Amino acid sequence: MLSMVEMNVRIPMDFNKDEAARLKAREKDRFQELRRAGKWRHIWRVVGHYANVSIFDVESNAELHDILTSLPLYPFMEMKVTPLCRHPSSTHDDER
Amino acid sequence: MLSMVEMNVRIPMDFNKDEAARLKAREKDRFQELRRAGKWRHIWRVVGHYANVSIFDVESNAELHDILTSLPLYPFMEMKVTPLCRHPSSTHDDER
Amino acid sequence: MLSMVEMNVRIPMDFNKDEAARLKAREKDRFQELRRAGKWRHIWRVVGHYANVSIFDVESNAELHDILTSLPLYPFMEMKVTPLCRHPSSTHDDER
Amino acid sequence: MLSMVEMNVRIPMDFNKDEAARLKAREKDRFQELRRAGKWRHIWRVVGHYANVSIFDVESNAELHDILTSLPLYPFMEMKVTPLCRHPSSTHDDER
Amino acid sequence: MLSMVEMNVRIPMDFNKDEAARLKAREKDRFQELRRAGKWRHIWRVVGHYANVSIFDVESNAELHDILTSLPLYPFMEMKVTPLCRHPSSTHDDER
Amino acid sequence: MLSMVEMNVRIPMDFNKDEAARLKAREKDRFQELRRAGKWRHIWRVVGHYANVSIFDVESNAELHDILTSLPLYPFMEMKVTPLCRHPSSTHDDER
Amino acid sequence: MLSMVEMNVRIPMDFNKDEAARLKAREKDRFQELRRAGKWRHIWRVVGHYANVSIFDVESNAELHDILTSLPLYPFMEMKVTPLCRHPSSTHDDER
Amino acid sequence: MLSMVEMNVRIPMDFNKDEAARLKAREKDRFQELRRAGKWRHIWRVVGHYANVSIFDVESNAELHDILTSLPLYPFMEMKVTPLCRHPSSTHDDER
Amino acid sequence: MLSMVEMNVRIPMDFNKDEAARLKAREKDRFQELRRAGKWRHIWRVVGHYANVSIFDVESNAELHDILTSLPLYPFMEMKVTPLCRHPSSTHDDER
Amino acid sequence: MLSMVEMNVRIPMDFNKDEAARLKAREKDRFQELRRAGKWRHIWRVVGHYANVSIFDVESNAELHDILTSLPLYPFMEMKVTPLCRHPSSTHDDER
Repeated sequence: MLSMVEMNVRIPMDFNKDEAARLKAREKDRFQELRRAGKWRHIWRVVGHYANVSIFDVESNAELHDILTSLPLYPFMEMKVTPLCRHPSSTHDDER
Repeated sequence: MLSMVEMNVRIPMDFNKDEAARLKAREKDRFQELRRAGKWRHIWRVVGHYANVSIFDVESNAELHDILTSLPLYPFMEMKVTPLCRHPSSTHDDER
Repeated sequence: MLSMVEMNVRIPMDFNKDEAARLKAREKDRFQELRRAGKWRHIWRVVGHYANVSIFDVESNAELHDILTSLPLYPFMEMKVTPLCRHPSSTHDDER
Repeated sequence: MLSMVEMNVRIPMDFNKDEAARLKAREKDRFQELRRAGKWRHIWRVVGHYANVSIFDVESNAELHDILTSLPLYPFMEMKVTPLCRHPSSTHDDER
Repeated sequence: MLSMVEMNVRIPMDFNKDEAARLKAREKDRFQELRRAGKWRHIWRVVGHYANVSIFDVESNAELHDILTSLPLYPFMEMKVTPLCRHPSSTHDDER
Repeated sequence: MLSMVEMNVRIPMDFNKDEAARLKAREKDRFQELRRAGKWRHIWRVVGHYANVSIFDVESNAELHDILTSLPLYPFMEMKVTPLCRHPSSTHDDER
Repeated sequence: MLSMVEMNVRIPMDFNKDEAARLKAREKDRFQELRRAGKWRHIWRVVGHYANVSIFDVESNAELHDILTSLPLYPFMEMKVTPLCRHPSSTHDDER
Repeated sequence: MLSMVEMNVRIPMDFNKDEAARLKAREKDRFQELRRAGKWRHIWRVVGHYANVSIFDVESNAELHDILTSLPLYPFMEMKVTPLCRHPSSTHDDER
Repeated sequence: MLSMVEMNVRIPMDFNKDEAARLKAREKDRFQELRRAGKWRHIWRVVGHYANVSIFDVESNAELHDILTSLPLYPFMEMKVTPLCRHPSSTHDDER
Repeated sequence: MLSMVEMNVRIPMDFNKDEAARLKAREKDRFQELRRAGKWRHIWRVVGHYANVSIFDVESNAELHDILTSLPLYPFMEMKVTPLCRHPSSTHDDER
């Protein structure tokens, strides 16, 4: 079951640089993990912003909530969640 | 080069049903054509709306403009275009 | 899996009264059907508006889309869909 | 008499963690109390957010105001109150 | 129990003038009736607009909904309902 | 001459509690004074918010500005001023 | 007593041209009349729009409402009213 | 050449009071200077706000920019600039 | 003196096609004329929309208003005007 | 390939003045560099704001993202990116 999630990251200027670097590294690891598990299907950068557009493939809203709120950078993110489903014209298996 | 396009379709209630059906059929054909050409990379339905989220892969802004404005349902669409690029965490070839 | 759907109904003033009455009767029947099936879990009227707040319990986004877009009054509705999940404080079985 | 209340919680990053934990525990206790008293009829988590959608059943606006403004986390909440009433299609006793 | 209701009236230019006059007369009668019954406590005109700010005193949300949706000009009104309660500084009996 | 003023109070969390209490007490005194003088005609609490809806009866815009900007809590208030006048259906002397 | 009024005029494309010309001529006459009476103190065109920014000098909100709602083009206008008063730095007699 | 500028002043609560007083005095002097030079044609206070509506008469956009950005309180101001021109109904010489 | 003008064109679907074509041809001629006169300095299409971003170089706001409101497609355009001036980093003669 | 980028700069009042001056000098150098390379085609100041409207000419969205996010003042900028393309009426070579 697919959802689009738009994430905007805002780390305060006076936030500790090392801690920020650690969080970003953990965020990247977590992303790779969810990628391999087939949960985080797509990610793109939004031009000119520290933001991304992502497509998630999960079993339920509850699973999506758990994934999003446990992201290392979650406390710095503003999120917009849009539920998606297969488009009648779609022919790709992974756009279910 | 990738762009997200969010399309909202609003066909007036008193619009001729046959003409609407013809336009929708042509829209679907055009979608398949652009799909095969690798231009219209993804399409998803937005739950509860006659709307879609799409990912286009084109050579330039000009090509994207030509594709969008020549869609059969274009006169009934409201569009939002968001330029995207590869996310540093991405490992998929097709998220360039 | 739960979702909140806020529905605003706008039937044009010059729309045929009999047809409107027929659609409303069919909408009510469809609501009862979905109620009995456990899909349309709650419905409330918004004070002062021809609008409702509803809670749906479905298997997937796709099922929700099918239910919403096949409502008899759908062409007259503006919808806002908010994905929900169980609240950690919840103790009711049906707030899963 | 029913009202929907949408609550958004924003605890500043530099707020004392222990104090936050204490407030959350008290919030949960207060929720259970109001739940048992039949005042806080429903609560759901909004996917991807530290926010909830709740349904309250109170005697009057004044009672609702007292309940909301005395919540332990109230100083950190942004609230939207929507007055509701029974929907003509409703058949549930508790959707009065 | 008090609520503020802001009403904006928009009668289409091509709406039958006689019918509009009849509806306005009935609206005025209904207002006087609700005034005498103590339900429609206050009404003021918003400067420069065909709009009013009103204060209603009702038993419940349901009663308010019935009053508002049965106003003769209701189909032409856009409404905003704000639940109110007694202010701690208030000393007037009728601001309960 | 009547105006509606909607006031939203936001006192920063780290503001001195004693000073806040003093300001609130002075605000209440000032309210009573203006009430007795017939300037602050009505005040209601907005449910769920530290906010009020008020009706002022003043000689001119200048008098209203002086009253509002000299309120003890003014530096913490966000205000929206809406000029009102007598509604043609009104029969109350004090809704002039 | 001064107020700023921003007026946006939207005459539908299919509105009778002669009637529109008659209304505009009457609007201009009415403007001159109010100008001479010292009520309509200033008027400026907003660049690129069929809109104006005006300053009115009236005795009360009620007088302003009567003036605005009796303008010949009023049914085609969208209005925004902002109450003004003398600025402490002002030295002009007519900015009272 | 005329422009309307709406200025909103927000001085942080913890800003040094003496420095604020100095800046306000300099702002007033600068205003008088621009007034005498015929550049700052009008200024009015917005009721209930630390804000003004002003009319400037300058040779060019560049001159307006230089005037606005060199105001002593500029760092605390939020500005909205609206280009104006003579209204066809205007008969005042200074509304060019 | 430079201004940015963003123009959105909306020609109703049932507008006469021949008349629309005539207006578009005249719009193009007028554009070329203003281009040659150095008034309409730049024009770009906004991707996915029947809209443009333009840069005008005029003597005054009044001249800009006359140019914009006499465009053949003006009655179908929604406009946003932003006054510009030379950027301190600019080295191009034509960005004055 | 052209894009309009609107940049709003907000440097906090308590930010180190020397560091700010250094960043602005580096921003200016970077601008000149990109100007000479033909990437930053136009820049204009927005009247009354610490903001600019710019036109970029790049090979791809990715190049634009790299340019924007590596600007020395980027951490203080709010950006809006609008993809552009050649307008059918354009005759300038550099409006491709």
